[in-house]
Amino acid sequence: MQENVMVISESLVRKHLTPEDAIHCVEETWLEYGRGEVIMPSKITLDMANAGIKGWYNSMPSYIRQTDLAGIKWVGGFEDNPKHGMPFIRAKVLLSDPRTGSLRALVAGDYISDLRTGAQPAIAAKYLAASTDVVTIIGAGNQGYHSLLCMSKILDLKEVRICDLNPAAREQFISRFPDANFKLVSCEDNQTACLGSDIIITVTTANAPLVQESWVKKGALVMTMGSYTEVSEELMRCSDKLVTDHIGQALHRGGFAEMAAKGEITAQSFCAELPDIIAGTKSGRTSSDERILTALIGIGAHDAACAALICRRLEEIGEAVPTVDMA
Amino acid sequence: MQENVMVISESLVRKHLTPEDAIHCVEETWLEYGRGEVIMPSKITLDMANAGIKGWYNSMPSYIRQTDLAGIKWVGGFEDNPKHGMPFIRAKVLLSDPRTGSLRALVAGDYISDLRTGAQPAIAAKYLAASTDVVTIIGAGNQGYHSLLCMSKILDLKEVRICDLNPAAREQFISRFPDANFKLVSCEDNQTACLGSDIIITVTTANAPLVQESWVKKGALVMTMGSYTEVSEELMRCSDKLVTDHIGQALHRGGFAEMAAKGEITAQSFCAELPDIIAGTKSGRTSSDERILTALIGIGAHDAACAALICRRLEEIGEAVPTVDMA
Repeated sequence: MQENVMVISESLVRKHLTPEDAIHCVEETWLEYGRGEVIMPSKITLDMANAGIKGWYNSMPSYIRQTDLAGIKWVGGFEDNPKHGMPFIRAKVLLSDPRTGSLRALVAGDYISDLRTGAQPAIAAKYLAASTDVVTIIGAGNQGYHSLLCMSKILDLKEVRICDLNPAAREQFISRFPDANFKLVSCEDNQTACLGSDIIITVTTANAPLVQESWVKKGALVMTMGSYTEVSEELMRCSDKLVTDHIGQALHRGGFAEMAAKGEITAQSFCAELPDIIAGTKSGRTSSDERILTALIGIGAHDAACAALICRRLEEIGEAVPTVDMA
Repeated sequence: MQENVMVISESLVRKHLTPEDAIHCVEETWLEYGRGEVIMPSKITLDMANAGIKGWYNSMPSYIRQTDLAGIKWVGGFEDNPKHGMPFIRAKVLLSDPRTGSLRALVAGDYISDLRTGAQPAIAAKYLAASTDVVTIIGAGNQGYHSLLCMSKILDLKEVRICDLNPAAREQFISRFPDANFKLVSCEDNQTACLGSDIIITVTTANAPLVQESWVKKGALVMTMGSYTEVSEELMRCSDKLVTDHIGQALHRGGFAEMAAKGEITAQSFCAELPDIIAGTKSGRTSSDERILTALIGIGAHDAACAALICRRLEEIGEAVPTVDMA
C-alpha cells in the first residue's frame, strides 16, 4: 500500500499563497475555533538554550473539521539566522489523515508563518478597533512588514508610524511600501509614535515595556504578537479589556504570562478569546472609548489551514507537485 | 539556497534498522537523558474524539546533544486501522538542524516506534529485574511481539507466558518465535500467568486492572507501557518502588495518572526516573525482594535517535536515498 506525500517547497508556497488567502484562512480558522470545530492543545516549546544553542522549536498540532485534516506546525526561532541571510523563523507543516495517520503533505512553512502572523493583527483590528486611521508599528522587521501588508489589504489606514531602534531598518521598511495610499512616518521614539494612535502593534523580540500606559489614548487597540512581554504592567492593569487568541496559551507564554505567574492575570481577566468574538458568542468592544489590550500568541491551526489551502489549489489547477512514497 | 531533505520510507527503515540498533538507541538515549544531554518537554496530545474521530496524535519534540539534532515524533493511534490492514500506531519523525531550523530528514516512523517501544522493557528489565527467568506478557499484539523480540536479544529467558483474551492471537504470537530457546506458554487467565513470574508486562489498550497485587511475587518487576492504566491501584500502593521514564509525563498520562490526579501519587512517589538509574545518579533496585512497578510512557528522543542512526548509516554506506528540496 502506498503512502504518497505531496512535498510543497517554499517557492511553490510563495507562488500560490497570497496575503488575501492568509487573511481568509486566519479569519475562517478563528471562526471555526470559536464554533468548537478546531481541536488544538496548547503548544509546547523545546528550548535549547541549556545546550548552548540560540534556538527553540514549538510544536503546534491541530485538527480542523472543515479541512478534515490533522496538522502540525514544527517551527523555530534561530538567533543567528539573519547573520547568514536566513529568516529568524523557520517552519514546516505536516498534514495528515485524521482517521488513518497517513501523511498527506510536507509543506514549507516560512512564508505561511509570515503571512498568517501578519494576517492576525489585520483580522483582530477588524473586530476590535474603534478606528484604524493611525497605526503604530513597533519593530520594523519581517513580522512588522507582513502585519502592515495584511492590514493594508482590509483596513482603511491614513497614517502608519514605524518605530525601530535602527533608523536604517525604519527606512527599509518604508521603502517596501512604495505605492502606499497612506502616510508612512519614521519615528525615533515610541512615545511620540504611540500618542494619539488608534492601533499600536508590538512586533519585536524584546522583553521590555515598549509601550507605556500613559501613551495609549482612549479607544485605542494595543496588540502584542508572539511570545514576548512588550508592554508595561501598568497598561495590562489599566486596559479596559484584555483579549487573547487562546487563554490556555496566554497564561503560560506571551505578553501576559509573567502577570499570570504572579496571579495578577487569570483566565477570568480576559473578556473573551478573539475566536469567540468572531463567532459572535462573546462580545469584544462595546464602546469606542475602551482601551483594549490583546496578546496574539499564535495558533498552529492557522498554518495548517494555509497549507491545506495550497494543497487544494495545486490539485485544482493540476500543477505538478513532487511526491514521495513513504511506504 | 537549497534545503535538501532526505526522505526515508518505511521500507528503507525496515531494511536498515535492526532490533539491536533500537536497543542500543534506547539505552544510549536514556543514559544521555539521565546525564542532562537530552532536552525534552512533556508530549502533548491532540485527541480528536470530540470531532467523532477514533484517533489521536502525540507531538514529541526533543534535542539530543550526541546527534546534535532537534527532532519531533508525530505519532497517532487509529482504532479502525487494523480492520483495514494498517497498523494501529502510525508515526513520522522529522530531524532538523538545531541552529538554523533547516529540515534534514523526513523519516517513516511506524517500525521505529514498534522497535523502540519493544526495546524499552528490555532495557528496563536489564536495570530493574531481580531475575528474568519467567516473563509474563499481557497482550499478544504488535507491541507485545516487539517487546519479546527485544527482550530475547539481551535477556536470558527460560519461560514466557503470553496472555490475551483472543486464543488465536496467542497462538499467532507464539508462532512468530519458531526458534525460541525458551518455553512459550499460552495462558487463558492473567492470574495463572502472573503467579510466580519474575517480569510482568502489560501491552494492551485497556484501562482495566489486568494485574492484581496478590498475583505479584516478591522481587518481581511489573512494567506497564504507553498511556493506559493496566494494573490495580492496590499494586500501585503496595509496590516497594515506583519508577518511570519521565516523571513530568507520568503525572499526567499513563498508568499512574489517575492516582496522581487523586493526589495519591506525586513526583516524590517515584524512587527515580529510569534514565537516572541508567546514568548511575540514582539507585533503582537495591534488594532482590523488592517489588518494582514501572510505567514506561515513551519519549520522542528514542525515535529521533533511531531516525538519526538510520540517516547516518545510509550516508556511510552511500545508499541512494530520495531527497527533496524544500527551498
